[in-house]
Amino acid sequence: MPVESVGEFEFASGESVPDLTLAYETYGEFDGSNAVLLCHALTGSHHVTDAGGRRTGDEAGTAGQARAWWGDVVGPGKAVDTREYYAVCVNVPGSCYGSSGPASEAPDGEPWGTRFPAVTVGDWTRAQRRLLDELGVGRLHAVVGGSVGGMNALDWAARYPDDVRRVAAIAAAARLDPQCLALDAIARRAIATDPNWDGGDYYGDDHPDPDDGLATARQLGHVMYLSKASMERKFGRRAAGRDARGGRRGDDPAGSFFPYREVESYLDYNAERFVERFDANSYRYLTRAMDDYDLSAEYGSDAAALAAFEGEALLVSFTGDWHFTVEDSRTLREAFAEADAPAAHHVVESDHGHDAFLVEPESVGPPLRGFLAEGVDARTVRDEPEDDDGTGDHPERAPVHASLFPG
Amino acid sequence: MPVESVGEFEFASGESVPDLTLAYETYGEFDGSNAVLLCHALTGSHHVTDAGGRRTGDEAGTAGQARAWWGDVVGPGKAVDTREYYAVCVNVPGSCYGSSGPASEAPDGEPWGTRFPAVTVGDWTRAQRRLLDELGVGRLHAVVGGSVGGMNALDWAARYPDDVRRVAAIAAAARLDPQCLALDAIARRAIATDPNWDGGDYYGDDHPDPDDGLATARQLGHVMYLSKASMERKFGRRAAGRDARGGRRGDDPAGSFFPYREVESYLDYNAERFVERFDANSYRYLTRAMDDYDLSAEYGSDAAALAAFEGEALLVSFTGDWHFTVEDSRTLREAFAEADAPAAHHVVESDHGHDAFLVEPESVGPPLRGFLAEGVDARTVRDEPEDDDGTGDHPERAPVHASLFPG
Repeated sequence: MPVESVGEFEFASGESVPDLTLAYETYGEFDGSNAVLLCHALTGSHHVTDAGGRRTGDEAGTAGQARAWWGDVVGPGKAVDTREYYAVCVNVPGSCYGSSGPASEAPDGEPWGTRFPAVTVGDWTRAQRRLLDELGVGRLHAVVGGSVGGMNALDWAARYPDDVRRVAAIAAAARLDPQCLALDAIARRAIATDPNWDGGDYYGDDHPDPDDGLATARQLGHVMYLSKASMERKFGRRAAGRDARGGRRGDDPAGSFFPYREVESYLDYNAERFVERFDANSYRYLTRAMDDYDLSAEYGSDAAALAAFEGEALLVSFTGDWHFTVEDSRTLREAFAEADAPAAHHVVESDHGHDAFLVEPESVGPPLRGFLAEGVDARTVRDEPEDDDGTGDHPERAPVHASLFPG
Repeated sequence: MPVESVGEFEFASGESVPDLTLAYETYGEFDGSNAVLLCHALTGSHHVTDAGGRRTGDEAGTAGQARAWWGDVVGPGKAVDTREYYAVCVNVPGSCYGSSGPASEAPDGEPWGTRFPAVTVGDWTRAQRRLLDELGVGRLHAVVGGSVGGMNALDWAARYPDDVRRVAAIAAAARLDPQCLALDAIARRAIATDPNWDGGDYYGDDHPDPDDGLATARQLGHVMYLSKASMERKFGRRAAGRDARGGRRGDDPAGSFFPYREVESYLDYNAERFVERFDANSYRYLTRAMDDYDLSAEYGSDAAALAAFEGEALLVSFTGDWHFTVEDSRTLREAFAEADAPAAHHVVESDHGHDAFLVEPESVGPPLRGFLAEGVDARTVRDEPEDDDGTGDHPERAPVHASLFPG
């Protein structure tokens, strides 16, 4: 039962689909009080780990499209120990891994395309709630998510405060800043200006996909997920070898004088793989949901949004993340405090950038494991102010802005 | 004489053009020892100021294409006082404001397109040297440049160490880091994947220009020149009004549910203006020159490149600049020190991002004026280490990377 229909669904926009389909996976056994909802990031899927789950097999047609995104964090004996917890992950509406979205079939038998309703993070939350109802899960032990999945987790605390005991938002934010909004808008524009996008109506074998636009969008996203330091370490200014993966698009006689660099080869190669697995319209839909998300929007303030939440919250941030920053998590930490909800802000020193939440299971695992078991007072959870002088004031850490990126 | 032909010119690539044309402007009178070469940034031109210059008039066909980029810094009574100095600015080869480049005419009467030789920052320097020869200027009092124009200025110190007394590199770097290389490569790819680019052969009234690709490239550049803080102040997450300038490309029914934000409107509007004034091939040529530049490349190290330079150097950096960082200027400061050249690194606290060198004349003017008059010991020039504890070690300023961008 890896794909579930939850019937008619009305989106925040007021538009409805007659039959919302949700692809999902579960790991472990439900005992009535051990459910942990995992929320995937922008281009992730419900396929969290290869270990011990009820897989979305080939029958759903999505196998192999997305890698298991948290195989080192979720599974038997892992931080989210599936011998103990019943983990559930749902592909969000608007995505392209089996849940309803622009690429899925509308009642008229044609792909929805841009006729699919606009989706918001709140729609994701409400869809997940519907699926959990189908699965017989009432109150969740925890909701855990990274990046925009962390926004999804925060939305649970605001929207269904009685339904969740613990919320972990990793590399997340109450809202994106205008720099991120700008880069996401540029990415969407790159897709829309690819002539093959064709107003979003490019499905079918006789129509090429807007791969160039989607590749540009992905490359932009990729740079947002890395940091200057990690790029310096990974690539430097080195030229790629002759057998470089990928291949430079649109080279010209004058361009061949210059090296094809490792960083370019890496982005090109990954973009080529990405366009094979992801739908361009979904990329536009999901980034719009992320850009639109604002914890305070329907409540007046972040703290007001969390006022009814009586559980505990863990915020994890990474020092090299310029996309969802340490400061963003500080803001969240303060909002939970103002709402009288026990919260901890665990800062990880890392130069991996935003990707750290995926590639540093050794940093994310211990605080997450402790938080799920014991809440914010767990030994492995470090709250930022307690690292400092105990005053609760975090010191001014970075008077010189540009030092973000060690040269 | 605002456009000069300097005859046959061989580029670093080994290719030649039979007749290199250079557009330039001069301001003030030459007295034999008062020449200051100004080096423009990526999309700038030789038109530095509207005040008191020998203008490139309509006869060159470029009037109005580019705004005067340093009108508050250069002119009578300004920091580069044209009553005192003879200021010269040359549009770099490969650009599109009157100097030879892809959009100019090849000997066969057709536009060069991508048949134009690859250009490097070193080519710019050598072309400037040729033009100064024509003007009768031997040794320069100073070379001053911002951004990639600062790289151009540094190249003077390395290539013609005896020809320049003082070098000011503002918001510059010895080389770009891989994050900047990546973003520039994405911008070039956006142009090349615009079907109207057509291998670079899009000139003529019967062929559309690759405006969509160039607009995407420009928007990306624009975000690189701003900072999170300046974008927060300028735009926040605000929706643009109904009469918003610009217009969202490729909107679709689902997209109209979401606001068209001020930041998006600003980028769209500016990109539309930009594609009217700039050539897409030039954008590719000039970013490749910038990406390729590495002060150390032909010398083994930055200090070795500067070993023969016996003048003085001023580095100015801005704390909010994540493109050419404070750390980049520190690296340069150390290289000059190692090369035994008197140098100062003047750090400006600013949240304007890279654009600060253009939009903060009040920050740039005083140290530049002092440096031109008295060198690094001028009262208005502050060398970074002297600001601190006098040990020459700059303190570790930013342990928490993400605090670069105040939330």
